[in-house]
Amino acid sequence: MSFDPEASNAEALRRIASAEAFLVDIRRAGDVIPDLARNELLHAGPPLHDWHEACGALRGAVTGTLVHLGLAGDLATAEAAVRSGAITLSSANDRSALATYGGVIGCETPVLVVENRTGKTVACAALNEGRGRALRYGANDAQTLARLGWLEGEFAAVLGAALRLSGGINVFDILVQALHMGDDGHSRQKAASALLLNAVAPWLFESGQEAPAIGRAVRFMAQNEIFFLPVTMAAAKSALASAEGIAGCTLVTCMCTNGARFGIKVSGAPNHWGTAPLPTIHGRYFENYRAEDANPVIGDSEIAETLGLGAFAMPAAPALARYVGGTPDEAARLALEMYSITLAEHSRFTIPALRFRGTPFGIDARKVVAQGIEPLFSTGIAHREPGIGQIGAGFGRAPLACFRSALEALDGGDPR
Amino acid sequence: MSFDPEASNAEALRRIASAEAFLVDIRRAGDVIPDLARNELLHAGPPLHDWHEACGALRGAVTGTLVHLGLAGDLATAEAAVRSGAITLSSANDRSALATYGGVIGCETPVLVVENRTGKTVACAALNEGRGRALRYGANDAQTLARLGWLEGEFAAVLGAALRLSGGINVFDILVQALHMGDDGHSRQKAASALLLNAVAPWLFESGQEAPAIGRAVRFMAQNEIFFLPVTMAAAKSALASAEGIAGCTLVTCMCTNGARFGIKVSGAPNHWGTAPLPTIHGRYFENYRAEDANPVIGDSEIAETLGLGAFAMPAAPALARYVGGTPDEAARLALEMYSITLAEHSRFTIPALRFRGTPFGIDARKVVAQGIEPLFSTGIAHREPGIGQIGAGFGRAPLACFRSALEALDGGDPR
Repeated sequence: MSFDPEASNAEALRRIASAEAFLVDIRRAGDVIPDLARNELLHAGPPLHDWHEACGALRGAVTGTLVHLGLAGDLATAEAAVRSGAITLSSANDRSALATYGGVIGCETPVLVVENRTGKTVACAALNEGRGRALRYGANDAQTLARLGWLEGEFAAVLGAALRLSGGINVFDILVQALHMGDDGHSRQKAASALLLNAVAPWLFESGQEAPAIGRAVRFMAQNEIFFLPVTMAAAKSALASAEGIAGCTLVTCMCTNGARFGIKVSGAPNHWGTAPLPTIHGRYFENYRAEDANPVIGDSEIAETLGLGAFAMPAAPALARYVGGTPDEAARLALEMYSITLAEHSRFTIPALRFRGTPFGIDARKVVAQGIEPLFSTGIAHREPGIGQIGAGFGRAPLACFRSALEALDGGDPR
Repeated sequence: MSFDPEASNAEALRRIASAEAFLVDIRRAGDVIPDLARNELLHAGPPLHDWHEACGALRGAVTGTLVHLGLAGDLATAEAAVRSGAITLSSANDRSALATYGGVIGCETPVLVVENRTGKTVACAALNEGRGRALRYGANDAQTLARLGWLEGEFAAVLGAALRLSGGINVFDILVQALHMGDDGHSRQKAASALLLNAVAPWLFESGQEAPAIGRAVRFMAQNEIFFLPVTMAAAKSALASAEGIAGCTLVTCMCTNGARFGIKVSGAPNHWGTAPLPTIHGRYFENYRAEDANPVIGDSEIAETLGLGAFAMPAAPALARYVGGTPDEAARLALEMYSITLAEHSRFTIPALRFRGTPFGIDARKVVAQGIEPLFSTGIAHREPGIGQIGAGFGRAPLACFRSALEALDGGDPR
């Protein structure tokens, strides 16, 4: 077989750029994700080789989730069930789902459902619990699980009803605006979260839910500045999924980490994970914390960078650039570097500080390898001990070896 | 008498910088503004000499308001009442009130009430009707007045109840964030408006109002990107009012226009308006409109620039800088010029694109005159015919002659 990589890449770009992603509902994961088994949990990043690979946050989240979902009576029983193989772990990204940090998704987990109405693809992600003490950071004490119970119960019912009534909230419309409002579309979601509440609030009131329940839901959303993160992730996945499996296509369709290895995929080799050991994170720590306290980087949120957001749009978020220890000039320099490994500039996501230039868009694994420039991603940093939560923020680079591996697996591709 | 202008100016800066402004309620103007007569309307800018000075938007707003408030049976009767002197017009700024564009405030007008809890000053402004067809632009047809009736009736009752329940919404906290989210704090109020809805929504739900009424209120706020403008104006006034009347003080406490003349005041001469003919507005017009279609510039919103917001913070709002026809570089150049006529840099309002430098703060009339640099202000441009609404946006400069006049009036001051 022979392919025209340029035509393949152009087709992939066309599909992704034309995606229209709508947040339509909150549903039980088992009803949205095909073949999700009752004893199966979906985690971030490429598939884990073994439970021994699981980092602290993931262990805490897996065992806590099993107790929370009623699949285990206590944390010790939960861990034994995973070790014995009675519970299986799978990569969320392989199932059009996205996991944030250590958070895992089971059949009964309510998920935000995003429809790409152009490509007819659907993706989903779990609700964001907010910063600090959260199950996705490995906290699994009674208080954390009780709050999660409310979030996945009353809150999910109230927001889900409003979303259904709305007919769908246009996610990229919100992100387009948010990039002009100081968000990067990944680590900073303050504007997008506020705009989402603006968009959904009228429907909440008209949903016929009980006023006190709506009040609790609104208060939670209004105080959670990263509520929009999983919405962005599911929307990005729904767009990128429409470009999976194009023969010979070297466009990167996902980047993520499971806490042990970083993984990526390219369109032309949709069943192959290109993986490598975790990269070093360059970050700034909150007072009293340092690099030794950090949990390994884990999560599927690098799907944002894969779509041209996050670190690829860093100059849009000067307050974030400062937060992760950089300067606006350094952020601009790093983002400009990304144009040399992407196939295009995004037509809708634009950066005010770069005179409204489109963000670097469509990572080409071949360009990454040829130029030796590793894609940037931004990330929060959590404490390695469950229950402490975020202790800093920073950025890293997706390892070159992932892209080499993906190209080698390309059916008919040329790994040079 | 002799004064130490430096000590006076330092005291003024101290009072303004320490102001903590809270949006606390919506009340009947007659209950908030001392000695507001039943036959009196408060308008933007310095006092009008005569009804013949009134521009189209102001005429439409005055006559429409008299009909709306039941003070006249129809527009013709309303105009006759103003001509005869049965209705008197006064400057809003002289009464700690602020008028947006041609909009006027009568006894029965509901106003947003902002308390400066440090300086114990209070200021108020009318609700923003949104862009387009609005009474403040002179539209006074039945449909416009019906919508205003809802806004000043049901809406004001619902939002007022939530504000009282909240204990007060911290206005400067919102503006501090908004400057990092693409707002300039004057012409662009998109982030601040969204953040206000986030802040007030939980209280709306807990206010015990009827759900459909709350739904309508939330929908209106969510769709009005400049809802926050009069909140900013009242907060700025509440801060600047605390510095009025300091002997020898050359700090500018307000800038505004009545559609015929531009006017300013300095702290040391609180009863004297320094006025001059209107400056030229440099702007960009929406499609199919041009400079000849423009209503003269009118409104009290230059109180934002007086506090170090708006055009003084223009590099914070690159999307706005583009909108008014400039570039980010030009916006930065203009804003940097303002540092040479201000006494300080604001400690809380900071500009990401200037490496989080504080905005130019505390206009010194003496510096303005000595350097011949006129303060910038941004402004929307409305059509001269009532009912069409906004047709563009731009910026102008407060005329030098205003500052000369104010200094001449300074008791003991030196107009050089």
